[in-house]
Amino acid sequence: MFLNREAISLKEAQRLLAELSVWPKTELKSARSAHGFVLAENVFAPFPIPAFRRSGYDGFGILACDNKNFPREFQVMETLGAGATLDKTLQPGECVRIMTGAKVPDDVAAVVMLEETENLSASRVRILNGSAKSNISEIGEEIKAKENVLSVGTRLNAGAISVLCAFGINEVTVYKKPRVAVVATGSELSRAATPETGTVYNSNGPLLAGLISENGGIVTGEYELTDDLDATRALFRRLTKENDLVVTTGGVSVGDFDFVARVAKEQTFLFNKLAMRPGSPTTAFVMNETPVVALSGNPSACFTGFWFFVEPLIQRFQGRETAAEEGKAILAHAYTKKNEFDRYLHGVLDACGTVTLDGHGQSSELASLYQANCFYQIPYGTSVSAGGSVKIWRLP
Amino acid sequence: MFLNREAISLKEAQRLLAELSVWPKTELKSARSAHGFVLAENVFAPFPIPAFRRSGYDGFGILACDNKNFPREFQVMETLGAGATLDKTLQPGECVRIMTGAKVPDDVAAVVMLEETENLSASRVRILNGSAKSNISEIGEEIKAKENVLSVGTRLNAGAISVLCAFGINEVTVYKKPRVAVVATGSELSRAATPETGTVYNSNGPLLAGLISENGGIVTGEYELTDDLDATRALFRRLTKENDLVVTTGGVSVGDFDFVARVAKEQTFLFNKLAMRPGSPTTAFVMNETPVVALSGNPSACFTGFWFFVEPLIQRFQGRETAAEEGKAILAHAYTKKNEFDRYLHGVLDACGTVTLDGHGQSSELASLYQANCFYQIPYGTSVSAGGSVKIWRLP
Repeated sequence: MFLNREAISLKEAQRLLAELSVWPKTELKSARSAHGFVLAENVFAPFPIPAFRRSGYDGFGILACDNKNFPREFQVMETLGAGATLDKTLQPGECVRIMTGAKVPDDVAAVVMLEETENLSASRVRILNGSAKSNISEIGEEIKAKENVLSVGTRLNAGAISVLCAFGINEVTVYKKPRVAVVATGSELSRAATPETGTVYNSNGPLLAGLISENGGIVTGEYELTDDLDATRALFRRLTKENDLVVTTGGVSVGDFDFVARVAKEQTFLFNKLAMRPGSPTTAFVMNETPVVALSGNPSACFTGFWFFVEPLIQRFQGRETAAEEGKAILAHAYTKKNEFDRYLHGVLDACGTVTLDGHGQSSELASLYQANCFYQIPYGTSVSAGGSVKIWRLP
Repeated sequence: MFLNREAISLKEAQRLLAELSVWPKTELKSARSAHGFVLAENVFAPFPIPAFRRSGYDGFGILACDNKNFPREFQVMETLGAGATLDKTLQPGECVRIMTGAKVPDDVAAVVMLEETENLSASRVRILNGSAKSNISEIGEEIKAKENVLSVGTRLNAGAISVLCAFGINEVTVYKKPRVAVVATGSELSRAATPETGTVYNSNGPLLAGLISENGGIVTGEYELTDDLDATRALFRRLTKENDLVVTTGGVSVGDFDFVARVAKEQTFLFNKLAMRPGSPTTAFVMNETPVVALSGNPSACFTGFWFFVEPLIQRFQGRETAAEEGKAILAHAYTKKNEFDRYLHGVLDACGTVTLDGHGQSSELASLYQANCFYQIPYGTSVSAGGSVKIWRLP
């Protein structure tokens, strides 16, 4: 079966997927339930912040004409806590005791910090030193009215939701999370894996399902398929109708039971061989106008393939690009093996910009994926010495 | 009130909190529902991986004595897909057609890749070249039985759960997420903020609640407190009984209505002034054996304070240390202002190790927190030029 596949580059494969049409859908959500969703609208400040002249300190508010000839005594007319207002006008020699965050009366020109004053009685204060600064945040000093405070494409996290709350915005239009089905293939998958029968537990399905959920997709179901062409075709037919995206693992190589590869060839076919390792048999096709990304059964290829091919699609359904950020880092250990193809390894990037080999060599790839926070590339035909620079993709 | 507070350093404040006793609790969870929880036990491989000799390729399995004198023809005895087994013994000149992932019969010494063979009929194959490598993954080659595959303290993500699934482990003991109450204080908080009344919407409460949920805590409730000493005391009394941790914002400065500061002084008091900006009035105390971290009402101080004081406590309840990682980065722009205190600014760290000023200068701090993926330090009395090195804390 398909022994003579045409290998294309990672970039070309990504381009083919990027050219597929996707139709992001939107929905209205309450601000507080929108955590993790992506904004489908720009958010503009409905009012400035501060919305009123705001005291930056606890102290005494005085008139402009009184901001001189210190030390001297003042009459304290009222105490203004945050949320309180003054309904009289100050006369020279009068002041208000005012707290941080409180609304400063219009005629007050400066707030003298508590530390620069001496309490004489409830209604008398001696101000020791004046203030060169007003200690007042003027209207719109932080955010102007109509300013674009959050942009379409922003994934709403704690900080973004606090911005919505600061403006009393209770509802926002967000992109619907895409519906994604996960299919693990292979008759070796079993709920009672034993060495005698050559069966194994399904770990790639849960890996992909977890990655999809972590990165903004909704997993509509996890399926296990035995090696059966008709069953494969039937399941794919149904899942591509019910989902925005289908992701599979296994069954894409050149073996007798690689039925995903066969179904792919029957549909709008994008690619089935990549000039990269791991994941060279990675396959993609379109069925019922729904993209199907078919990753190999190797855990490491599943992980890399998710980030290179699946996650960007999940983001596009939400009007975004991939959250994996290209950059460069220093490789902690030498990578001496020269590869025939570009090799992509997962690693751990520290906060000083050094990346450590991960799951390559002594430790298992399967058991190290959970630590990975980046990939890095070893270009074909090259080796990288310790301290050498590598291209990385930093994972979110 | 408390004008003469004693400022302590960030390190000292963190040490005081780190010395508090916390009692992590554990619970049993199904592997699939444990996403985001922290392992409270080491996980050892119950069997090796592979658990059986596993074919690495699609090809033909041959005996050791037959791995020479190519090209020549072989009799194909059976086709072994993954999950299938052979119940006969091969004789010289016989082979099995075997697929990637399938169990390799004990007497087979090597799998010759499909690409190196020529199909003659269903039962005859010509093997063109032998294989220097066996193309067989031996038992335990990836993971040995009893190997410690996941350690106590690991936060279970997609990759870690796939490891549990690979071993058919259905239940794990995890740390319970700590129960955290969030209190925003100040009579200025309102559901109908208007410039006329000097009221504002509560944005720090949602910020803290979001950060707590994002980082492994359970928010048991969000409360708003008006400036009332009795109400403050009563709410704190109740919340410290019902929660593992209480986090508050506002009311910790030297103002007349800073009642959190007063309640703090009545309890087992840890600190109420820090030699750092922002967040100098940050306060901490213990009430009913429950830590209360009282952050200032400044959004930026809330954010920084969460990461320096609250998040480490949330992690300790789950047997972990802070997930913020210390490192260093290059500052993209100059920071010319010299501060009297160490200043901590939030920023955006790119994948090349450069950090950009964020929310400092033109843009609002409130409206930039959502982009931050690190803090960096400007030590007191210094300025940093563009391209200079700064100490950073990379956020998870």
